Amino acid sequence: MTDRGVSDAGITAQITAQLRDQGIADLTVFDAITAEPEMAVVETCRDLFVQHQCDGIIAVGGGSAMDTAKAVAVFVGDERPLSELFGEDQVASRRYPLICLPTTAGTGSEVTNISILADTEAQIKKGIVSNELLPDVAIVAPELTLSCPPSVTAASGIDALVHAVESYLSNFATALTEPYSLAAITKIRASLERAYRQPDDLAAREEMATASLMAGLAFGNAGVGAVHALAYPLGGRYHLSHGMSNAVMFVPVMRWNQAACPGRFVALAHAFGAAPDIRNAEAGEYVLSEIQRLCDAVNIPSQLRAFNIPESALSELALAASGVTRLLRNNPRELSVSDIEDIYREAY
Amino acid sequence: MTDRGVSDAGITAQITAQLRDQGIADLTVFDAITAEPEMAVVETCRDLFVQHQCDGIIAVGGGSAMDTAKAVAVFVGDERPLSELFGEDQVASRRYPLICLPTTAGTGSEVTNISILADTEAQIKKGIVSNELLPDVAIVAPELTLSCPPSVTAASGIDALVHAVESYLSNFATALTEPYSLAAITKIRASLERAYRQPDDLAAREEMATASLMAGLAFGNAGVGAVHALAYPLGGRYHLSHGMSNAVMFVPVMRWNQAACPGRFVALAHAFGAAPDIRNAEAGEYVLSEIQRLCDAVNIPSQLRAFNIPESALSELALAASGVTRLLRNNPRELSVSDIEDIYREAY
Ligand SMILES: NC(=O)c1ccc[n+]([C@@H]2O[C@H](COP(=O)([O-])OP(=O)(O)OC[C@H]3O[C@@H](n4cnc5c(N)ncnc54)[C@H](O)[C@@H]3O)[C@@H](O)[C@H]2O)c1
Ligand SMILES: NC(=O)c1ccc[n+]([C@@H]2O[C@H](COP(=O)([O-])OP(=O)(O)OC[C@H]3O[C@@H](n4cnc5c(N)ncnc54)[C@H](O)[C@@H]3O)[C@@H](O)[C@H]2O)c1
Ligand SMILES: [Fe+2]
Ligand SMILES: [Fe+2]
Repeated sequence: MTDRGVSDAGITAQITAQLRDQGIADLTVFDAITAEPEMAVVETCRDLFVQHQCDGIIAVGGGSAMDTAKAVAVFVGDERPLSELFGEDQVASRRYPLICLPTTAGTGSEVTNISILADTEAQIKKGIVSNELLPDVAIVAPELTLSCPPSVTAASGIDALVHAVESYLSNFATALTEPYSLAAITKIRASLERAYRQPDDLAAREEMATASLMAGLAFGNAGVGAVHALAYPLGGRYHLSHGMSNAVMFVPVMRWNQAACPGRFVALAHAFGAAPDIRNAEAGEYVLSEIQRLCDAVNIPSQLRAFNIPESALSELALAASGVTRLLRNNPRELSVSDIEDIYREAY
Repeated sequence: MTDRGVSDAGITAQITAQLRDQGIADLTVFDAITAEPEMAVVETCRDLFVQHQCDGIIAVGGGSAMDTAKAVAVFVGDERPLSELFGEDQVASRRYPLICLPTTAGTGSEVTNISILADTEAQIKKGIVSNELLPDVAIVAPELTLSCPPSVTAASGIDALVHAVESYLSNFATALTEPYSLAAITKIRASLERAYRQPDDLAAREEMATASLMAGLAFGNAGVGAVHALAYPLGGRYHLSHGMSNAVMFVPVMRWNQAACPGRFVALAHAFGAAPDIRNAEAGEYVLSEIQRLCDAVNIPSQLRAFNIPESALSELALAASGVTRLLRNNPRELSVSDIEDIYREAY
């Protein structure tokens, strides 16, 4: 299971050739997955799986391909409509093996228990959440990301950075997630711009792939927070990509969070390269400016107005975001609907 | 499955009471596991499991109880003699669930794929190594370590430190193991002495429990090295405990390793609290002196002669240690038999 962009880059052919060399000849390739996948793609793909009597799934691609594959893997054999699988622990045991090869760096979806799909009717993005979605094997090969176009490198790289920062600040961060969050930040700060400017710099790609994996392991256990909650409605209604919608909400949400946990911003500042003796009072601003600098360096618009979103939509967006309680409960500082609207306004 | 020391501390009764409260009344308690367990205990325990038609295993204890339980869990239902399970990937699929609750901090055995048993005939300690040994659930509750006597706190705490340091220096260390190794070192340095002097200091116990878990995750993937390889024959022939035999070999082996990887000793030095600007040339000595200081602080003898080992035994010990290739291949600097003998002599 993959998508056209990945196939056009030659990756699909490379992997099917290797599988055939190993005597696995009876392959069904589905490469019509769409970016920011919709529920219908999962249904189409499930039918194909059944029709071809497949034995398992290999997902090759970014979060879109992997999330589609994860959903299909638990949907095959389930009698219920797809809509009933959404939410937490609503799926039955997965019966087919699932292997993920990420080609972006990235979503971390290869190690998380969630699949995010667009519900086109309701105009929102929704998650299927269950440990049954955890792939059996994740093969993180930085070589597969070399062909990522700069815009994808940028958006998915900032997504990984948001995973790292939000998981570190999460109310459910633990001693096991924190070191991964911080190490991912340091790697992304050192390598994202390089991977963006020099797409064939394998060392930078490797650092980014590792960082994305670490951030995935961290947020897969600690969760993400308000950046993601406020990003969701932008994807659902205005079709901003996941990475782009996160990027644009990143600084405004961090400005809001900063006041709640100054001590944790000191640790973040160190991960972002601050001097060991940075003062508490300076850490928040330092982190905000580093995030802004990185987003600018990879040419991500920093204002909502750049995306053709009418200002009049902000209060409706705020209402929608306030419903993403699954993520808001992770955030270190609480947000009322009007706090959220203020943040959208700041981002506008 | 547990041992007398853990039962005497009241832990077994506490857990069986909780299980009975949850309606799990039909329990078989085996608390005759011996420290540094021998193969015979595994056989006895397996027979009991079959006789009582048990459905699964809960191990409560230090590495001795957990390792015995892990071996029993894969031995039940296997027709072969226990001796045929030793080595890498020699066991069949585990059929019974296995839950581990460590009461020391610790071996990390709750998250590793190995069970170490004493072969009394051959006078050596041997490992059953397979991912089938990975417990289904590990419950790391620092409260369970509060009753650890100081000598056990010391020996198992230094064992955890060796896991952290050796996994960091391992040839198979990865970006996913290194942050855990380093974080474990920092925690142990900050808390071991406190846990030793104030056994009821829960905050110190919690830091140690977390560090032991992190070190277990790190060495479970990256492996340990020459300290463990040289410690094994001391346990097999002279019945030094695992923690004690590691502790006594720790500094001499690190003095040997230091020359091979000065850069990695700088990172170790930082984890051990060195100033950010410590010079490369000073890092090795700094690490050695910190390790020595910690061992002294928890009253661990630093010389082999303290354990009634005749000096004439050293060359035979060296021959035995050189056979532990499974661990020696992880070590950052190669050791010939005569190098090993020199190190034993330095430790004598
Ligand atoms: N499940 C999770 O844990 C999780 C986490 C974050 C995001 N997501 C989801 O992941 C999706 C976004 O994934 P993404 O950012 O990886 O992008 P993507 O999968 O949507 O891919 C973006 C574009 O890049 C192309 N592409 C990907 N890899 C390429 C390569 N190596 N060479 C050439 N082209 C390549 C694709 O063809 C596509 O056109 C969203 O739907 C988002 O909701 C899921
Ligand atoms: N499988 C692995 O990954 C791994 C790693 C390291 C060591 N080991 C093995 O673990 C064993 C050593 O384990 P250990 O160091 O945890 O010690 P241990 O399990 O041998 O326990 C030592 C003593 O402490 C007592 N004790 C343990 N917890 C207690 C508590 N909370 N209160 C009171 N008494 C308590 C026990 O009764 C015992 O007498 C060795 O056999 C070693 O080879 C295994
Ligand atoms: Fe994301
Ligand atoms: Fe050990």
